[in-house]
Amino acid sequence: MNSSHFPNRMNARDYLAMFNNTASPGNRGMSLEDDVNESNAFYVAREIASIHKKPTPVQIVKVDYPARSAAVIKEAYFRQPSTTDYNGVFAGKYIDFEAKETKNKTSFPLANFHPHQIEHIKLVLKQKGIAFALIRFTSLNETYLLDGEYLIPYWEKSKQGERKSIPYGDIKKLGHLIPEGYQPRLDYLKIVKDVYIKL
Amino acid sequence: MNSSHFPNRMNARDYLAMFNNTASPGNRGMSLEDDVNESNAFYVAREIASIHKKPTPVQIVKVDYPARSAAVIKEAYFRQPSTTDYNGVFAGKYIDFEAKETKNKTSFPLANFHPHQIEHIKLVLKQKGIAFALIRFTSLNETYLLDGEYLIPYWEKSKQGERKSIPYGDIKKLGHLIPEGYQPRLDYLKIVKDVYIKL
Repeated sequence: MNSSHFPNRMNARDYLAMFNNTASPGNRGMSLEDDVNESNAFYVAREIASIHKKPTPVQIVKVDYPARSAAVIKEAYFRQPSTTDYNGVFAGKYIDFEAKETKNKTSFPLANFHPHQIEHIKLVLKQKGIAFALIRFTSLNETYLLDGEYLIPYWEKSKQGERKSIPYGDIKKLGHLIPEGYQPRLDYLKIVKDVYIKL
Repeated sequence: MNSSHFPNRMNARDYLAMFNNTASPGNRGMSLEDDVNESNAFYVAREIASIHKKPTPVQIVKVDYPARSAAVIKEAYFRQPSTTDYNGVFAGKYIDFEAKETKNKTSFPLANFHPHQIEHIKLVLKQKGIAFALIRFTSLNETYLLDGEYLIPYWEKSKQGERKSIPYGDIKKLGHLIPEGYQPRLDYLKIVKDVYIKL
């Protein structure tokens, strides 16, 4: 279990909100995950795409069965996901991505990714899927789509001892700023269409 | 929460084995899910495809934090999945399916599917993804791939009061028998390749 799942600064309410996708009263504004989930719900409702967040993987150890319809999990543990969080299909294309936000203003720390997520992105690209990261700089209120082909070299270099983050300027140059609006809140498929499908 | 998740005949050990994907000592032979999971692991290891089972969705209510690295879920509930169980990418194609087994010998009961799973399959087909069901007749030891385009009319008719199952003969005729072997145990991508990609 990777400890980054359990940041110290989170209280239990925020932590649960994260997993159950319900707004916490303590939250100011919406998280990137909220925005992506709401945009995906919009895409599904309009039949524009079928893209979903994968459930949080949980290792279930103990279940009580007080009644047929009310099994209660009494002991379980968070497991590390083996893939990225989001995938689905849009206009015949396989779409796969991870959504991450940082409070940094000058760079995006690569520690936000797990090694197996990068391995997963590599395999998706090899299978000719569309794989990318959605990266939000919360302080700047900017969210970028960065293609997996750009992400991987930064990751590889960081493993060889080079810098452990992607400079903001590089993301601005190599990535695509995603328009924010009302419906959908984060129209990342507009960018996907422009970048991957129209060409 | 759909009660079909909690069949009376299952004991707690078998039930947990189902969710944690570990063989139960009480199991005779391997389940379809075991076979699919093992085949997917084979495909990923050989970089033939990236197809994964989605985690079981769980509504987390209470988490204890005895230590940073050992959060324990103390109360949670099974939620109904909003999609099929499996998806991924193979040779540039989006792949999406549900795997179901029946002890029946003469037909496959449509009650094995949830309405939202059928809606999901419809949307995937609309988005030009490949969507199908893997249907195993455990008594016959036969597993078929049945395309979503064939599945849907049977579902629609059953909603209009017609028969609530697909006859075995129809599945044999419309579907494709999947070869079983050693590695991968259930080579369903061989059929996907023949049916969807070579043509």
